[in-house]
Amino acid sequence: MPAPDQPDRPPVGDDRVARLRQEILARGLDALVVGHLPNLFYLTTLRATAGLLVVGAGEAVLHLLVDFRYETAVADLIERGEAPRGLQLTRVSGTYEEALVGLLDSLDARRIGIEADHTSVRRWQWLQDRTSLTLVPTLELVERQRMVKDVEEIGVMRRAGALLASLVAPLLSVVRNGRTERDVAGDIDQLVVGAGFERTAFETIVASGPNSALPHAHPTTRRLAAADLVIIDFGGVLESYRVDMSRTVVVGRATPEAERLHQAVREAQLAAMAAAVPGVAVSAVDHAARAALARHQLAEAFGHSTGHGLGLEVHELPRVGRPRDDADEVTLAPGMVFTIEPGVYVPGMGGVRIEDDVVVTANGIDVLTSARRDLAVT
Amino acid sequence: MPAPDQPDRPPVGDDRVARLRQEILARGLDALVVGHLPNLFYLTTLRATAGLLVVGAGEAVLHLLVDFRYETAVADLIERGEAPRGLQLTRVSGTYEEALVGLLDSLDARRIGIEADHTSVRRWQWLQDRTSLTLVPTLELVERQRMVKDVEEIGVMRRAGALLASLVAPLLSVVRNGRTERDVAGDIDQLVVGAGFERTAFETIVASGPNSALPHAHPTTRRLAAADLVIIDFGGVLESYRVDMSRTVVVGRATPEAERLHQAVREAQLAAMAAAVPGVAVSAVDHAARAALARHQLAEAFGHSTGHGLGLEVHELPRVGRPRDDADEVTLAPGMVFTIEPGVYVPGMGGVRIEDDVVVTANGIDVLTSARRDLAVT
Repeated sequence: MPAPDQPDRPPVGDDRVARLRQEILARGLDALVVGHLPNLFYLTTLRATAGLLVVGAGEAVLHLLVDFRYETAVADLIERGEAPRGLQLTRVSGTYEEALVGLLDSLDARRIGIEADHTSVRRWQWLQDRTSLTLVPTLELVERQRMVKDVEEIGVMRRAGALLASLVAPLLSVVRNGRTERDVAGDIDQLVVGAGFERTAFETIVASGPNSALPHAHPTTRRLAAADLVIIDFGGVLESYRVDMSRTVVVGRATPEAERLHQAVREAQLAAMAAAVPGVAVSAVDHAARAALARHQLAEAFGHSTGHGLGLEVHELPRVGRPRDDADEVTLAPGMVFTIEPGVYVPGMGGVRIEDDVVVTANGIDVLTSARRDLAVT
Repeated sequence: MPAPDQPDRPPVGDDRVARLRQEILARGLDALVVGHLPNLFYLTTLRATAGLLVVGAGEAVLHLLVDFRYETAVADLIERGEAPRGLQLTRVSGTYEEALVGLLDSLDARRIGIEADHTSVRRWQWLQDRTSLTLVPTLELVERQRMVKDVEEIGVMRRAGALLASLVAPLLSVVRNGRTERDVAGDIDQLVVGAGFERTAFETIVASGPNSALPHAHPTTRRLAAADLVIIDFGGVLESYRVDMSRTVVVGRATPEAERLHQAVREAQLAAMAAAVPGVAVSAVDHAARAALARHQLAEAFGHSTGHGLGLEVHELPRVGRPRDDADEVTLAPGMVFTIEPGVYVPGMGGVRIEDDVVVTANGIDVLTSARRDLAVT
């Protein structure tokens, strides 16, 4: 029996599955097959490297197909009451495709949604050949739901953001004249893991001097030298959630041009943060950063989007950039979490990027990764 | 002009692309679109998070499509002579799909191979709607080529294997009574990164006591206790190549049952290693491990395959298991690299796994990860 201070809350998956069922019904589907692992984790809390979840439009159908490796883990989730209500385990003995067709044929279902972004042509053609069901490609059904974090998720991401931000001070001390980018990156990885993150969220970027003008450079054996701009982009995974930040450092004394670039990027970040309020289009956030850089004649030097959603993946919805089409536009709502990371890149000279993670609140944003943002000198 | 001790060797991609062209011709294709990033790296040495390579059946066509983030990196590869001969850069401004269709329409090509395992239904349907070309799903064309490592790759993997094996001794010292699985895993991650690996190859497994009976457990807050079996499964990435090994440790004194399980797994691993010679079916390696465990009445306790190929991915061809069908069977050839990792798992009691990486030689195998394999006591 639960203690009074630990109320018996329903598993987080209950509400998530219920909301997904509304989307399934709205699209006239009888069921949706979820195979993208972050989506699977979001709905079931199962951490696995393979698995398929079949979510019926009605409450009777919620089947998780896993192979022997995750059978015990799923049985435990169900027994501990952590799985969404009604979840049934189906053991996969042969291939996942065979098990899926076997299950779908046993259901009273005709129109089956398949995640178009996460299903391979190989699987799609195999299923088309083996079943008379109508397979319907679906786009971002779970991903759009994941865009708005619930209170449990925001709690984890706030803790993760504060933890990552706490590494900025120790991190600055490992960025030193004469060291290689790769050595600095190795030290940062140790800081991230040592701080309690499960692992780094992506390959740490340490891009110095001319390399800092390459937005996605891998750390090289180049040694940091006086007056270099150094972009540090690093992230961590805490309880399956990703946080991600960047700072730019100068080795020794900053040139006036480096100061100018940094000041412009800082202004662009503040402008984007000010534009991020519930109810506006996410493209307005991107536009605000771009307009600020244009005032410094740096519009052309900003080659990427202003930011990206993050959570169970390091890049997820919403895209904080120019919308590709009308359907791509997203309206900001409380609970959305994304990066704001304008940058400028001057080939041959160097680059500056400042990146923070923010969560949309009732009337603006909270910054999850607060730490000094000046052009730190090392 | 190159110095005499540095002969001007052609880039590794030249030979790899030439061999792929033979496969493209043999399938009656005019070109193949390669989008799987490890395949892209293998053919071009470009490390990117997005990109498409179009390989024509003839030498005139070799186009690498990348967005602005990798434009400079590709131009540098070409300028330094590290890219395969004839590689042309195509900058992607809008979407990759649009750029691909634009390029394909400009070529004298009709039948275009598309990697069926790595192309999403979304991209496939978009392409089908936008072009009159014949799109042909292909299976594992580059992956089968990658199965046999060339001399450069084997050199890196030998160094990586020796480096990983050198961590077994320090690793044993962090496995101690009373520590949590998660703390031990964190220490191992620091060892891996501190040793010079770019990063860990996957989430380190530390599975203790009953958790060791779960073949793919995540580290938990469970504290190691006397007589626990502890499976440690860890790996590292060196110059983009993965190595992967497992050892099983006992805390305090081993029970006779733990000794028995460990002895059986060790015999199974030796039997599998002895069976691995060029010219035999890879399933014979799996069979040898299974037969050894059956002699100990442990056949049912061995739920997974005996091993998997590794290289640019931590799981790649060949599968070292029972073949799914005749087409799935692979004949061992010198240069193949894979794990040999039999294990037994007794629910409630615990498990044992011993895993090493091997390379097939002219008359047998070399073990890349030699380090003590006894049931270490800690």
